[in-house]
Amino acid sequence: MRVLVPFDGRNPNSRLSPTLSAAERRELADALREDVLDAIRNAGAEPLVVATTDVEASAPVSVDDRSLSTAVNARLEAETPTAVVMADLGLATPRVLSRFFDASGDLVVAPGRGGGTNALVVSRPEFRVDYHGASYLDHHRIADEIDASVAVVDSHRLATDADEPADLAELLIHAEADDEADGGRAARWLRDAGFALDATDGRVGIGRE
Amino acid sequence: MRVLVPFDGRNPNSRLSPTLSAAERRELADALREDVLDAIRNAGAEPLVVATTDVEASAPVSVDDRSLSTAVNARLEAETPTAVVMADLGLATPRVLSRFFDASGDLVVAPGRGGGTNALVVSRPEFRVDYHGASYLDHHRIADEIDASVAVVDSHRLATDADEPADLAELLIHAEADDEADGGRAARWLRDAGFALDATDGRVGIGRE
Repeated sequence: MRVLVPFDGRNPNSRLSPTLSAAERRELADALREDVLDAIRNAGAEPLVVATTDVEASAPVSVDDRSLSTAVNARLEAETPTAVVMADLGLATPRVLSRFFDASGDLVVAPGRGGGTNALVVSRPEFRVDYHGASYLDHHRIADEIDASVAVVDSHRLATDADEPADLAELLIHAEADDEADGGRAARWLRDAGFALDATDGRVGIGRE
Repeated sequence: MRVLVPFDGRNPNSRLSPTLSAAERRELADALREDVLDAIRNAGAEPLVVATTDVEASAPVSVDDRSLSTAVNARLEAETPTAVVMADLGLATPRVLSRFFDASGDLVVAPGRGGGTNALVVSRPEFRVDYHGASYLDHHRIADEIDASVAVVDSHRLATDADEPADLAELLIHAEADDEADGGRAARWLRDAGFALDATDGRVGIGRE
């Protein structure tokens, strides 16, 4: 299946600006995107990066400087089923993406924390995305309007995008818990940049040396 | 299966104190706990509330004013398999709890956001919990020490405890998205208390009238 991976080449992960410089955010965004592309390929699907500017990536890149929703909708009109997976899902694994791609529904949705839509499979050509605002609720409504069935994939890994500093803690926590690997490029980047887990307060956060 | 549901009867959900008064936190905690007890029973298991003080609940209550880890460990020594499910998992459903209870492993763990352990099934009598700090990582280590196999259940619903204001937004988002119901007592309590979703900034949060 074709999997669109939208990527903001101009100002990625802007909500991390209190924690990271613009150049650092760009490096982390590249690492996250490459981790996601690996996971998609290892789940047997074909990623296509849809980027606002020309970027170097390990998958084909289609440059489209229109809004995210417009750029995605143009491609849904051309081909379904098509999946859309956000480029900053640093906890995505081939295993959870396979569970996601294999789910049955006219629309398969993985909610993001905070009402976002972190991953979608669209099988009905008349479905249109709307990523503005509480997109998870909007996508349910749009599906209702065209009588499309909706399957929700309940996954902490897919719900976690790299939006806020606490999300970076999730990357390090699960990289440490997983026996299999060191957690991929993004977790390595964070450690190399001096970040470590900080368990001094309630939830575990991150601190920087 | 016996499911321990630890409950802080003295100062529940203390990290919500910027948002809710002590009396409100107590009401919300009661609503959350009753939602969790319903979900456990509807998943076919038998909840036992382990509370720091005597509380009225719809399930048997065992009062134990020792630390959470000590109170849980005393009961694991007496009986395995035993599950432990946190009382503030407002998004828990019978469906996700069945997926959780049915998973295979000497230890089955559902990580909470921020390195916590939101749900556990312990099948090895020598396993001991340690809820202090990054308990999700500690529980992996303790399992390694006794050569116990660990199954991780990847669930946004089980990862979401009612710890911070943003978690309350999750309750309202998923109550609104789910066709089935109005989201249970906790979501109703929040709406009755004047809370509503606020989509004006990045992630959807909550606002109060």
